[in-house]
Order: sequence, then C-alpha cells, then structure tokens
Amino acid sequence: MKPYVEMTKEELQELRKELSAQYKEFQGRDLKLDMSRGKPSAEQLDISMGMMDVLSSSDDLTCDDGTDCRNYGVLDGIKEAKELLADMMEVAPDHIIIYGNSSLNVMYDTVSRSMTHGVMGSTPWCKLDKVKFLCPVPGYDRHFSITEYFGIEMVNVPMTSTGPDMDLVEQLVASDDTIKGIWCVPKYSNPQGISYSDETVRRFARLKPAASDFRIYWDNAYTIHHLYDNDQDHLIEILAECKRAGNPDMVYKFASTSKVSFPGSGIAAIAASENNLTDIMKQLKIQTIGHDKVNQLRHVRFFKDIHGMVEHMRKHADIMRPKFEAVIETLEKELGGLEVGEWTSPKGGYFISFDSLDGCAKTIVAKCKKAGLIMTGAGATYPYGKDPHDNNIRIAPSYPTLPDLKQAMELFALCVKLVSIDHILAEKA
Amino acid sequence: MKPYVEMTKEELQELRKELSAQYKEFQGRDLKLDMSRGKPSAEQLDISMGMMDVLSSSDDLTCDDGTDCRNYGVLDGIKEAKELLADMMEVAPDHIIIYGNSSLNVMYDTVSRSMTHGVMGSTPWCKLDKVKFLCPVPGYDRHFSITEYFGIEMVNVPMTSTGPDMDLVEQLVASDDTIKGIWCVPKYSNPQGISYSDETVRRFARLKPAASDFRIYWDNAYTIHHLYDNDQDHLIEILAECKRAGNPDMVYKFASTSKVSFPGSGIAAIAASENNLTDIMKQLKIQTIGHDKVNQLRHVRFFKDIHGMVEHMRKHADIMRPKFEAVIETLEKELGGLEVGEWTSPKGGYFISFDSLDGCAKTIVAKCKKAGLIMTGAGATYPYGKDPHDNNIRIAPSYPTLPDLKQAMELFALCVKLVSIDHILAEKA
Repeated sequence: MKPYVEMTKEELQELRKELSAQYKEFQGRDLKLDMSRGKPSAEQLDISMGMMDVLSSSDDLTCDDGTDCRNYGVLDGIKEAKELLADMMEVAPDHIIIYGNSSLNVMYDTVSRSMTHGVMGSTPWCKLDKVKFLCPVPGYDRHFSITEYFGIEMVNVPMTSTGPDMDLVEQLVASDDTIKGIWCVPKYSNPQGISYSDETVRRFARLKPAASDFRIYWDNAYTIHHLYDNDQDHLIEILAECKRAGNPDMVYKFASTSKVSFPGSGIAAIAASENNLTDIMKQLKIQTIGHDKVNQLRHVRFFKDIHGMVEHMRKHADIMRPKFEAVIETLEKELGGLEVGEWTSPKGGYFISFDSLDGCAKTIVAKCKKAGLIMTGAGATYPYGKDPHDNNIRIAPSYPTLPDLKQAMELFALCVKLVSIDHILAEKA
Repeated sequence: MKPYVEMTKEELQELRKELSAQYKEFQGRDLKLDMSRGKPSAEQLDISMGMMDVLSSSDDLTCDDGTDCRNYGVLDGIKEAKELLADMMEVAPDHIIIYGNSSLNVMYDTVSRSMTHGVMGSTPWCKLDKVKFLCPVPGYDRHFSITEYFGIEMVNVPMTSTGPDMDLVEQLVASDDTIKGIWCVPKYSNPQGISYSDETVRRFARLKPAASDFRIYWDNAYTIHHLYDNDQDHLIEILAECKRAGNPDMVYKFASTSKVSFPGSGIAAIAASENNLTDIMKQLKIQTIGHDKVNQLRHVRFFKDIHGMVEHMRKHADIMRPKFEAVIETLEKELGGLEVGEWTSPKGGYFISFDSLDGCAKTIVAKCKKAGLIMTGAGATYPYGKDPHDNNIRIAPSYPTLPDLKQAMELFALCVKLVSIDHILAEKA
C-alpha cells in the first residue's frame, strides 16, 4: 500500500467506503473487548494458583528467626521476604521495606508524607507555594493522578528511545528548586516499553538538583517482566549508581509482585538509602503495626528464591509473548507503509505505545468504543489527561484471549485507517 | 490487711523488708514476661489456622458476582466481605469500605487525608494555624501517636465509668472550631474496658460542633470481643444514632478482624455516611487500585457469616476469660483492702486498667522491668506520654500463658506494694 497522504482525494474516498463497510460489519458482531488496563489474563493468574497451597493449617507459619507470621509485629517485613524482593529489585535486603499489596499505594504514601512532613527534614511541601514534578511523557496515568491529587504542578519531559530527554531533565532539575521529583518507569516503560539506556541512568544518578528534597521516583514495575529468554533489556541498578555518583539519597525505588503473583494480593516494596529508610520508618511506625506477614511468607514459600521467581516469569512470558507479537504483526500487516501511525516493539512489560497522526487519538479511541472495543482513554498517558498532540494511544494486550486480541487489533487498525483518512481528507479540503 | 496508709512507719518498714525479700526471689527466677501489648497468644492464633485451608488451588477464587479475586479491581471491597464486616460493624453493607490489613492504617490515612485535603470540602488542616483533637484519657497510645505525628494538639478529656466526660466534650466541641476530632474506643475501651453508656452515645450523636469538619473517630476495635456469653456490653450503633439526630456525617467508624483472625493478616474497614464515603473514595481511587481481595474472600469462606464469626469469638473468649479472671483475682487477693490502687473488671476487650497511688506508676513499671516483667510504659495511655497523675498502668493479659500470667501478676502486685510503701513512707517523713 502507498502512504495515505500520497493518495488522491478520490482514492481515499473510495477506500473510506470499503473500510466503513468493514467497520459496520464489526459493529454487527456485538463485541465486548477490553484493552484498557494492564491487567493479567485469567490464564496468567492460573499459573500462580499453587500459591494457595503452600500454607495450610498443618504448616508452621514461623520465620527462620522465630517470628510468628500470624501475630503483630515486624514493621519492615520478614527477613525471608526482604531477601526475595531484594534479589528481585537488585539491592541489598537491608535497603528494603516490605509493604502491603500495592506499590502504587507506597508511591502515594511517599508523596503524601512529603506533603505533610517533608523529606529527611525538609519543609513539608504543603507549606510551600509551589511544588513541581517532572513527568516523562507519554507515561503512566496513575503516577500523574497522584501528583495532580496533591496539587503538584506537572511538567512534561519528552521521552526518547533511550529514556527521558536528559538535557532537559538536567537543566530543569538544576535550575528550579520547586521541582521535587520525577516519575520514572525505567524498564519496559509504561506505555512505550522503552528501557533507559546506561547513559540515561548514569545521568540520572548524577543530577544536581537545586532542591535537596528532590527524589527520583523509580517505579521499576517491570523489572523481571521480560518477553524473551535471550533478548532482554538490562538496566543499571540506580541505588548503587546514585551511591557511586555521591548522591545516595536521591532515589526511591518501587516494585511489587502484582504482575508476578496475583494483582491486588501481592507484596510491594520500597528500596532506598539508609537515610531515606530511617526517614520513612519514622512515619511507618505511626501508620501501622505491620503489613501482612502471612502473605509475605506465602510468597517466599511459593517462589523459594529469585530463581524460582525467574522461572515463574517465563510462564508469564509464554502467555504474553504471542500477544505482543500478535499486536505488532497486525499493526505491521494492516498499517505498515501507510504512514498513519508509529508503534513500539517492546521486549517486556505490559504495553505497546501507538502514535497516530496528530489530532486523531481521541477519535480513534471513540471509534473503537462504538464497535465494542475499550482502549485506554486517549490523553491518559499525559498529565491532566492532555496529550498536546492528541496522538498517543496505549495498547494493553495482556487481558484479552489471543483470538479476542487479534480481532481487537484488526478493529483498532481499521479505526486508525478510517480516522486517518478523514483527517487527511479534511486537510486536503 | 488494713490499708497501708493506716499502718505505722515501723509496720511499713517491717513489711517492706519482707516484700523486698520476695522481690529478690523473683529477680532470681530470671523471668522474661511481656504484658506490654494487646497481642493475642499463640493459642488464640491456632484457632484461626483453618483459614489457611479454605482457599486451595482447586478452589474457585471468584465472587458471587463473577469478580475474579485474583485480579485487579474492586476498590471498596468484594460484596461478600462488605456483608460480613457490615454485620460485624452493625451497619449496612453499602456504608462500608473494606481496606487492607490494619484499621490503624485506615485511621492514619483518614487524618492524613484531612491534613492535605480537608473533610468533605473543608480547608485542608495543614493550611490551618491550629488543629486540635479531644483525647479521652486514659486511652490508646497509637491513636495519640497519629495526632501527635501530624502536629495536632491533643486535649485530655477524663473518662468516667460511662465514657468520656460528656459535659466537657459538648462544651469544648461547641465552643472551639479548631477541634476537629475525638478519639473513641467506645466498647471495652483501651485500657479501661469501659463501654459507653446509652446516654453517652446519644450525647455524642447530638454534639453541635463549631467545626463542620469535626468527626468522631469511633474505633470499635472490640465490638465482638466479649468474655462472657451471657454478660455482654451493648452499644447503641453510632451511625444510625447520628442519622437519627440529624448529624449523619459526623462519625467515622473503624474496625478490623485483627483480633478475630490473624493480627496483621486480617481485613479492616471504615463505615460512614454516603457523603463521607464519596469523599473518601475520591482519595482511595488515587491511592490504590484495590486492596487484597483474596484475603477478603479467605475471611468470607472461613467465617461464612456473622454467626460463624460470633462462634469463633467464643473460642477466643474461652482463652481470654481465665486470663482476665486471673488478673482480677490476683489483684483482689494481693491488693484488696490495701488502698494502694484501683482496677477495672471489663467484660471484654484486651485490657485491664490499674490506677496506683498518684506518682507511683512509672516506678512500679520500672520495678517490674528489673525483675523481668515488661508492662506497657507508664504514661503511654496519655497524649504525649504524659500522665498528669503518674498513676495509670495498662495491663494486657492476652499474650502470656496462664501460668506465666499468674506469676507476672504476683510480681506486679508485689511491685505495687513496694512502691506504694516507699511512697507512703516518703509522705510520712
């Protein structure tokens, strides 16, 4: 196919007729497909069902150090769980606090604490006239929701193929002491699936923030979520790199087992320097007596160690890989050469990012919806839901079955074509 | 025995010698007894072990409405869990949000949200010059820690045998719009085991607070934690009473299964009016995708319904009752008639409160410690750890075994005697 933009008005109108008929046919199918969120499929959940069997009434729910996991106590997590999550997060166990079921909750609490109590002795942010966060875009909507909720002004920083535009990050962070943080999904980023390059991570660790309470919010959500055994992205470990660079306290690292075991019933953790952890513990001991140790123990007994977890992730990959490949194949087959969009081909994570022609994303998503396909809302990948180019759409291939996904992607590609034709025709008019 | 205060100096000195010898004997036993916290005993934990068997890999982890508990979603809790906790909390299921493992965490988050975002549209408390909470004393140290952490000024309100001094509460709340809350443990209170009278609850529901964002923090931690089948305290349900009184939004009610199933691995909940819940949900949807639904389902499958929970609580009572009775018996036997202290005889909950002679509590606790018995720190039952009379000591009988507890209480009574004698002798001198 030749690029749409090179086609004549008449050719486009003819094609439009044909595609409209196809769209009508899709509408007749009464589809109910949901690709809006990065939710694991039922098939993925099934592979963790063994977790329900590792603790029974005949088992001893006691840790190696004698802690009875059934009772109160142990604020920062049982030793075994810290070791497992530390290996997953590539840090030392004593640099970790284990939380409840959600790393999002940990991030929220981290921002909330900074609002009311500052960071390691700094002025509480609620006492400041203005607080800003840098937001690499496109990015994760729930990050942006947290900062928006707290009235923190969000400043867009464009993503590149190697991570955020570090020239801009360095310049902004160094010149503006109201900038207190940056949201990062450094590996298999949400939504583009980009992993930060070594240079990017090194430059992050060497930032010279004007604000002493500036922190990198390093949400390593997809640290072990590879699609391939032999073609995996690697990331320089940020805590160690910050320490080497003389900035040991500049980063909070977050992770969870939400997409390893069960979403909502996993365990989450923060990793940070000793100074930061001491600061956090001052709050944590007020907030709770301790998190769910039985669930921590359940994870340890099920995975045993990091090797067990890695083997487990291969099972996830076996389910995810064909889905990612189906999305890419359909996009290439249907849209290749048409010059109506670009997309990423991640090697892990949960998302593929699609960039339509400028000004088309909202209309494409709406058109999908009218034929029974729910995509992530256009704009969701930008702070305040405002995509300045209205061109980014997040594709979440995990939840539908493979046959449903193929159907959904055909419909998606069809909607892209139709909306793009209308857009080009309008420009030609 | 005649009251110590009526004994001569010589008699007291003689007695002191005898008791000191007994104390030395105790010191020789090398005891390690911990009565500091309201922790269930291992025996109590054992009765919930069946909870480890109700979900296995061969079970369907799906709710009646089709929700897969293993996946993301359902912000306010699965329907079945809301019904169970609603029955436990004596409210309608649609007035409940199910949280994670800790009601303390829910209370912390409630105060934290009020600091940053106010209450149902009021000015965020962090923007106010002064925020105060009323604290019935003696009370629960972890409540006081939360308000202290947020810089909220705490105002003591004396407890009476029917609950807080309501004349004072009414007057303070009506006259001071910086008073934004009051901490209550209305049933089998911590530490006295007092349940608020009907009149007290009615007066609470009819408060006329100067501040529209004043809330009653109703921590009904021991709502089903009775010691006896046929002699139980009953509490007027506060949400309904507030509604009847025309103050539907004035109360947050908290509870958890921490001392029903496993502490740290239970489920917690808040109950409130629709207006309050709507306000809370605005925050909750930013903070998390949802709490641990598998654990919610586990509780529902184990207890089945409120009747199952009540039957389960009888097993706890069978373990707790002899411990409470042993404490009371020892106190009566050792200290009865001496006029060196007073104590409560609760019909439920986790604590017995002991009031020594003024100025003796710290010394008694310290003396216990030197012989190997850890009591809750003297002062802990007051805001800022400051007991103005230095006379209140919380007794937590749950954790030690019955033989250990008996030994501990003998030692405790001995320390009370010794410290009281010194105190009286010093006054006579």
